[in-house]
Amino acid sequence: MPSKSPVIIDLKFIPQEVEDGLKGAFSGREVINLADPAHKGRDLSGIAYAVVWKSAPDLFSRAPDLKVVFSGGAGVDHVLTLPGLPDVPLVRFVDRSLTTRMSEWVVMNCLLHLRQHRAYEARAKAHVWEDLSQPEAAEITVGVMGLGVLGQDAIRKLGVIGFQTIGWSRSKKEIDGVETFAGAELGAFLARTDFLVGLLPLTDETRGIFNAAVFSKLRRGSPLGAPVFINGGRGGSQVEADILAALQSGVLGGASLDVFEQEPLAKDSPFWDMDNVYVTPHVAASSDVKALFSHVEQQINRFESGLSLQHLVDRKAGY
Amino acid sequence: MPSKSPVIIDLKFIPQEVEDGLKGAFSGREVINLADPAHKGRDLSGIAYAVVWKSAPDLFSRAPDLKVVFSGGAGVDHVLTLPGLPDVPLVRFVDRSLTTRMSEWVVMNCLLHLRQHRAYEARAKAHVWEDLSQPEAAEITVGVMGLGVLGQDAIRKLGVIGFQTIGWSRSKKEIDGVETFAGAELGAFLARTDFLVGLLPLTDETRGIFNAAVFSKLRRGSPLGAPVFINGGRGGSQVEADILAALQSGVLGGASLDVFEQEPLAKDSPFWDMDNVYVTPHVAASSDVKALFSHVEQQINRFESGLSLQHLVDRKAGY
Repeated sequence: MPSKSPVIIDLKFIPQEVEDGLKGAFSGREVINLADPAHKGRDLSGIAYAVVWKSAPDLFSRAPDLKVVFSGGAGVDHVLTLPGLPDVPLVRFVDRSLTTRMSEWVVMNCLLHLRQHRAYEARAKAHVWEDLSQPEAAEITVGVMGLGVLGQDAIRKLGVIGFQTIGWSRSKKEIDGVETFAGAELGAFLARTDFLVGLLPLTDETRGIFNAAVFSKLRRGSPLGAPVFINGGRGGSQVEADILAALQSGVLGGASLDVFEQEPLAKDSPFWDMDNVYVTPHVAASSDVKALFSHVEQQINRFESGLSLQHLVDRKAGY
Repeated sequence: MPSKSPVIIDLKFIPQEVEDGLKGAFSGREVINLADPAHKGRDLSGIAYAVVWKSAPDLFSRAPDLKVVFSGGAGVDHVLTLPGLPDVPLVRFVDRSLTTRMSEWVVMNCLLHLRQHRAYEARAKAHVWEDLSQPEAAEITVGVMGLGVLGQDAIRKLGVIGFQTIGWSRSKKEIDGVETFAGAELGAFLARTDFLVGLLPLTDETRGIFNAAVFSKLRRGSPLGAPVFINGGRGGSQVEADILAALQSGVLGGASLDVFEQEPLAKDSPFWDMDNVYVTPHVAASSDVKALFSHVEQQINRFESGLSLQHLVDRKAGY
C-alpha cells in the first residue's frame, strides 16, 4: 500500500489558529503548512491535496499533481481566479459553524441599524440621555439576495427576531413562510426591501450587482427613513463608488460591509469613518479551522475509498 | 346613562409620539394629556382612569377618585412608589410589541459582546484591518434571570441564534428545551453563565441583586475571557458601584446597561465612556403608544362591562 499523500495547507487565516487547529488533525498523513518558513521553496510535486484560502498565485505551478483542491471557506472565487487551476474536483467548505456565524453577523447588523446603534453611541459619547422614536422589527422588511444555505439560515433567524423577510435568488427557491423572487423579479423584490442583505457567491452574473441602479430601486418608505445595504457575501459583487455616492446623497441611510472589492480595505478608504457604516475585516463567517480540517479529512477519506466527494463546486455556475 | 369618565394621560415618553398615538384613541371619552399646558392646575377629581409612566408625586392627590391605574410599561415599580397610590386595581402593559422589542435589545447586546463589536470599531477607527479569534454563539452560555413573558421570549430567540441558554427565576418555571434554576439554586446557575441577562421586575427581593457577590460567581472559563452583564430590567436591581469595580478589576469583561439606579444617568457617570460598556437611555423596550392606548381602551371596556381586568399587578409580589 503506497503511503498516504501529504496535504498542503495554504490558509491566510490567523496563523496561531491554523497551527492550533492542525494539532491532532490528518493523523497518519504529513501536513505541509506553507505558513511555516521551513517549507519555503519545498518541492510540492506529487502531492494530491491542498486546502487553500487566498493562496499565492504560484501555488498550482509549485504543486502540479493535485487531485483535489479544498477551499477554506464557502466561497471559491479566490480559487477559481488563481492561475493554473488544474481540472480537478474543487470542494467548498460548508458546515454548521460557518452558517451560524454568518447569521450571527447578519442578525446583529440588521439589529444595529434597526435599533439606531450609532445614534445612541453618539449620544453616549456626549453623555446625553435621550430616546429616539423607535420602529420595531416587524415594521422593517429585510430582503436577502442569495438563498443558498447561508441565505436560508439568515432569513429564518431574521424572521424569528421579528423582521419581515423576503428573498431573491437567480433561480426560484421555495422557503416555507417566506415570499421569494427569482431572476427578473429583482425590481419587485427591491421595491419591497428596506434592508438589503447580500449573501451571493461571486460569479460573472453577480459581479457588480450591488450598484447605483439597484440601490435606487429600494423601498423608500421605511420608518427609519432610507434603506440600508448589508453585504456579507463577496466584495466583487459591490460597486463601492456607487455605495459611497448613495450614502452621501441619502439614497442609502447606512451600510454594513464585511467584504470589499480590494481586501484588505485601503487605509485611506472613506468607509472606515463614515457615519452609520459598519466595517469589519471579512470576518462575518470565519471558518472554524478545526471544523474545516475535520471536513477535509472526511472528504479525503471518501475520495480514497472511491466514494463521491461532497460540496463539489460547479465551475460553470461559479459556486 | 352617565357620560364616560375621562382618562388622564401622564406619560414621560417622547411628547410627539404620545400626541400622535392619541389621535383616534379613546373615542367617545375625553383625554386629559397632562403634557398639554392647557391642563395645568386642572381639577382631576371624579376621574376614574389614569395611564402613567413616571408621574409627578402629586398625581394621586390631584386625582383622588381613580378606579383603575394603568402602567405605561411592563414594570410598575415607578407606580408602586408614588405617594398616595389608591387601593385600586393596577394594570401592567404587556403586549407583543413590548416583548419583541426587549428581545431585539437582548439579542443585539449578546451579539455585540460575542462578536467583539467594540474591538472591531476601535480597529475601524484606526483604519486597521485585522481579524480576531472568534468563538461562535454555541460556545457561550447566556443565563437569563427573570422568566416572565420577557425572559421566556428572549431565551427562545437567543437559542435560535445559537447561544446555549439557561434561566433562573424566583419560583421554578418549566421551559421546553431550556434548563431552569429557581430560588436558592442561584449559585449553580451563575457558575454556568457567561453572559448574565437581567430581566427581573424590581421588588424588595430583587433590589440590588446584581452585586459583587453575584458577579464573582459567574463562570470564568468563557472563550471571550471574562463574563458580561446585560441589564434590560430595572436599575434598582443593580449595584452600580459593584458593576464599576467589577469592570475595572476584570471580574466583568463588559456590560450593556439600559437601566440605572438613577435615571437619567448622571452626566458625570463613568459608564458613558467605558470600554466595552454599552449605555442606552431606558429604551430597550419602549412602549408602542398606539398599542398601549388600545390595550388601555380594551381593559376599560372590560371594566365598564363588569368583566375582570387582565394583567393585574400583585402588589405583594410587586409585579
